[in-house]
Amino acid sequence: VAPWEAALGAKVTVPTLDGKISLSIQPGSQSGQRLRVKGRGLPTKTGRGDLYVILKVVMPDKNETEKTRDLWENLQKQHPDFDPRATIGSKGGGA
Amino acid sequence: VAPWEAALGAKVTVPTLDGKISLSIQPGSQSGQRLRVKGRGLPTKTGRGDLYVILKVVMPDKNETEKTRDLWENLQKQHPDFDPRATIGSKGGGA
Repeated sequence: VAPWEAALGAKVTVPTLDGKISLSIQPGSQSGQRLRVKGRGLPTKTGRGDLYVILKVVMPDKNETEKTRDLWENLQKQHPDFDPRATIGSKGGGA
Repeated sequence: VAPWEAALGAKVTVPTLDGKISLSIQPGSQSGQRLRVKGRGLPTKTGRGDLYVILKVVMPDKNETEKTRDLWENLQKQHPDFDPRATIGSKGGGA
């Protein structure tokens, strides 16, 4: 997902074993987060397993304009206490 | 890294086998990107191997204000043609 989709939430289309589905991304979603889609996984003796969709935040291409640079800097200023490396070294930690 | 660090570039501190190092993140860096740090990996017969640092874009906590929501929406508007799911299904594809 785009960073703004993770931040604000979005409806996205995801390919599955049997066709595309629409998936709701909640506002405040995180990279690496696992979303369960019931009954869309592998067949089991008793029915179907669940499908897990792993979120990955994907950045747009390097193509910053003065405007986007400004917006990023502004977002940074709005998060003075955010440390993306707070959990580094632990499992699934940031980098 | 924070999304703005990936977008604008940053200097970040990374723990290694023998202490912390400072690493330059280039502007326009991508989640999953691999940065090689020469000679900081495992010892080999002839010296030291290289260390690879995998970038992960980490979102701030869900805590949007009117201001940050506005900034995210503005960034989205600045990238009308960006499709974070263009490579979905392929190796390392987005989601």
